[in-house]
Amino acid sequence: MSRPLILITNDDGFDAKGISSLVNAVEEFGDLFIVAPDRPQSGMGHAITVNEPIRSYKTSYFNKVNAYCCTGTPVDCIKMGMFLLKDKKPDLILSGINHGSNVSTNVLYSGTMSAAVEGALEGIPSIGFSLTSYDANADFTPSIKYVKLIVKAVMDNNLKTGTCLNVNIPYVKEENIKGIKVCKQGRAFWDDTFDQRSDPFGKDYFWLTGSFGSKDNDKEADIHYLENNYVTVVPTQFDMTCYQSLNELTKWNFNEI
Amino acid sequence: MSRPLILITNDDGFDAKGISSLVNAVEEFGDLFIVAPDRPQSGMGHAITVNEPIRSYKTSYFNKVNAYCCTGTPVDCIKMGMFLLKDKKPDLILSGINHGSNVSTNVLYSGTMSAAVEGALEGIPSIGFSLTSYDANADFTPSIKYVKLIVKAVMDNNLKTGTCLNVNIPYVKEENIKGIKVCKQGRAFWDDTFDQRSDPFGKDYFWLTGSFGSKDNDKEADIHYLENNYVTVVPTQFDMTCYQSLNELTKWNFNEI
Repeated sequence: MSRPLILITNDDGFDAKGISSLVNAVEEFGDLFIVAPDRPQSGMGHAITVNEPIRSYKTSYFNKVNAYCCTGTPVDCIKMGMFLLKDKKPDLILSGINHGSNVSTNVLYSGTMSAAVEGALEGIPSIGFSLTSYDANADFTPSIKYVKLIVKAVMDNNLKTGTCLNVNIPYVKEENIKGIKVCKQGRAFWDDTFDQRSDPFGKDYFWLTGSFGSKDNDKEADIHYLENNYVTVVPTQFDMTCYQSLNELTKWNFNEI
Repeated sequence: MSRPLILITNDDGFDAKGISSLVNAVEEFGDLFIVAPDRPQSGMGHAITVNEPIRSYKTSYFNKVNAYCCTGTPVDCIKMGMFLLKDKKPDLILSGINHGSNVSTNVLYSGTMSAAVEGALEGIPSIGFSLTSYDANADFTPSIKYVKLIVKAVMDNNLKTGTCLNVNIPYVKEENIKGIKVCKQGRAFWDDTFDQRSDPFGKDYFWLTGSFGSKDNDKEADIHYLENNYVTVVPTQFDMTCYQSLNELTKWNFNEI
């Protein structure tokens, strides 16, 4: 029996510590094929590159593992990986480990999670992993155990087609992690602002900033469990229809101005 | 009573015909405030700009309407609009009219729709409009009637908080449009490929291409109705949890390797 084929990307770039940690964690599970951004692509969401061409080139950065750097977004990297693999369809797509949480509505902004959602769109079981530390030198050691457990569980069970997992791992000592919790996406929002500055020529520029905090207190949501030191697993799909509103909207009168 | 405040953006850039058509269609409904990308931002999905600063500058392009160009993505434009408006919260957010369809799973890739989803995240009623023609000089005249009808309906009714509308308008003669259909997001997918080329220096580059077609035949979905010349209205929300999988996943054994 041939080993499973696992396509891997991330959004922090091929040389981030998180993707190397992921590669080390999962190489026992199959043959790896990496297509990762050539530079940080955080916050790229589900962006694809349509107005300019993409470059993709082989790298020896991951030693014996087949790996490519790509100038595109994380979602481009998944598409490029599928293209380069030609007729060999991956059995699993993994993204991360992201440097920073992607809990709650961050799933929309996250390049890491959008790559996993793209995998779901391709009909391939996919997982996005994130650690709640933005530190480039974060210690991924306690994460490894949970990455292995969750990858193994996905390989042993049937993840519903069109679904991926959003996994967030608390950045605490291993003994303080309480376990794995399957839960729903929380409702939390960015309180955005812009840091307005003046360049040396007197013209304004802005840095998008703010804090992620405006949230409900739902005790069944990922944000709550993550704050309480659980590894959170949210099954994630791409049908954004608000089914609750369908009936209401059919009653609206669209025909009078 | 003060007039409603309407924040407007798009993803084709401030000088696209689609956004001017939208502005002309809705100026009777309120005070407009435009923050639009300074260049095409198609396919940007829910991307935000975090690794570089953003510029934003006033433009007289829309004559008397308060308008800014922004170097960021469509979602950045919504965030910038909210920032520039300070304490004045918009009553409505509109995005488009996009040059090209954003039906089905394109909602994920679309900058136009992601701007509307960002509005929903802000708790503001929001609508993304798209016309099924990529032509920069497309005739938006038949769209205007439906834009007005749908904006009026949203202003007269209560769109569930956290919900926006994904509106797609068929590019056919007005007399051939069969009406407005409230429906769900279809399941259709891009059959991606890359057009591989060689640059003058012998190095490969790639254009992401492909066709949108791999679809189910759901007669209740937007893609079906749009193909049958209906204006489709999909209520869209941002909880991507796969609730059907929650129960199944809690039965998985995550604790053995």
